[in-house]
Amino acid sequence: MPLSYERHIFRSWETNAEAWTHEVRHNNIESRKLVTNQTIIDAVLSCQPSRVLDLGCGEGWLTRALIDRQIDTFGIDASTQLIDYANRASSDRYAAISYEELFKKEAIDKYDTVVCNFSLLGQESVELVFRNIRKILATKGAFIIQTIHPVVGCGSEQYVDGWRAGSWDGFSPTLTDPAPWYFRTLESWFRLFSSNQLDLVDFQEPLNPTTNIPASVVFIARVADENSPLVNDG
Amino acid sequence: MPLSYERHIFRSWETNAEAWTHEVRHNNIESRKLVTNQTIIDAVLSCQPSRVLDLGCGEGWLTRALIDRQIDTFGIDASTQLIDYANRASSDRYAAISYEELFKKEAIDKYDTVVCNFSLLGQESVELVFRNIRKILATKGAFIIQTIHPVVGCGSEQYVDGWRAGSWDGFSPTLTDPAPWYFRTLESWFRLFSSNQLDLVDFQEPLNPTTNIPASVVFIARVADENSPLVNDG
Repeated sequence: MPLSYERHIFRSWETNAEAWTHEVRHNNIESRKLVTNQTIIDAVLSCQPSRVLDLGCGEGWLTRALIDRQIDTFGIDASTQLIDYANRASSDRYAAISYEELFKKEAIDKYDTVVCNFSLLGQESVELVFRNIRKILATKGAFIIQTIHPVVGCGSEQYVDGWRAGSWDGFSPTLTDPAPWYFRTLESWFRLFSSNQLDLVDFQEPLNPTTNIPASVVFIARVADENSPLVNDG
Repeated sequence: MPLSYERHIFRSWETNAEAWTHEVRHNNIESRKLVTNQTIIDAVLSCQPSRVLDLGCGEGWLTRALIDRQIDTFGIDASTQLIDYANRASSDRYAAISYEELFKKEAIDKYDTVVCNFSLLGQESVELVFRNIRKILATKGAFIIQTIHPVVGCGSEQYVDGWRAGSWDGFSPTLTDPAPWYFRTLESWFRLFSSNQLDLVDFQEPLNPTTNIPASVVFIARVADENSPLVNDG
């Protein structure tokens, strides 16, 4: 049986955990250094959070950055390797758990802010997060996503949803086994919010100051109707 | 004193009224025929309107298309020439009045749906519409805009707001004196809604079926809080 795209994403992070941790901790990724790291910190702070879940935290830099700013933050990631690196830098603030496992838990902690920083890369896995996000979001909680901007990410391909081949072009040659990723148009992102009763309250296109091209897109949504029943995760 | 960009837009429509009317009525504009005419009709119908204002109606095709579907529709445009053509096709459903004059009127009719189909081309004139739209929108009314998609419209220039040179490339050679237009990023469009207490309830990127590139972008917003005071138009 061939490896599923979703499993390939998981395997790629496990494979690249050491090299990725090195790149992040040495601030080697130009767009993160120039734009997107500060962008996501500012986006979280703009929500005046008291308890944050860093969903898909990787080696954990954002969790640490928020803790440094006196914000109670917890990070989770499916990659046990990345969480190992995270715990070595700041123990007891991280757990290795997949999105699927998280939402299957009987008792789930609630957060007033959930942030996904370049961590929504799949298809079904992302739809699972949207369907279940209100299980972990407190009343009026904020759901913040930073991801690849479709304008930039589309390249010369057709502007339609679908799986695309991954690439580490522009990253360190120490990174291998690039995973596929699921391209979504902006309209599709918008529908993920609206079809899951999430109100989009902010939309940002942070520019790379060198090129004046969007380095990412940021969505901030809030639970639309606190009285709505939770959606089944079936 | 040089012609202002906003005045240039007005002059261009007056100059091109006859040629433009010919192009629209002979269905000569490929993207309109293939995609955007049906898109805007569907968008209006999706709001289940009873009384529609076609703001910047040009020679009036959309007003007529909605009247044909038994929807009480009125069209206004700053261009007296275009409104002349509109009235010749369907009298008593159109008026020549600028956005500025419309909002200065003492008694303003209310509509449950206001639609701007490729008619928000300027800077101050567009901001004026957003600041005042609630004066002409009934409670829970819908504000529908179809415009150039920034992804496509940006071309090779920097992705930042600003006036850009106009062009009739791809249109009939009978069209002359292309007017400048004010480019806005998607983030800027989003902020026009949010800063004027309008909730974005739908966002569409209708694709050209030949190229699979967005032919336009459609925003549908509703008045966010019916109890909020009207904003000054100063």
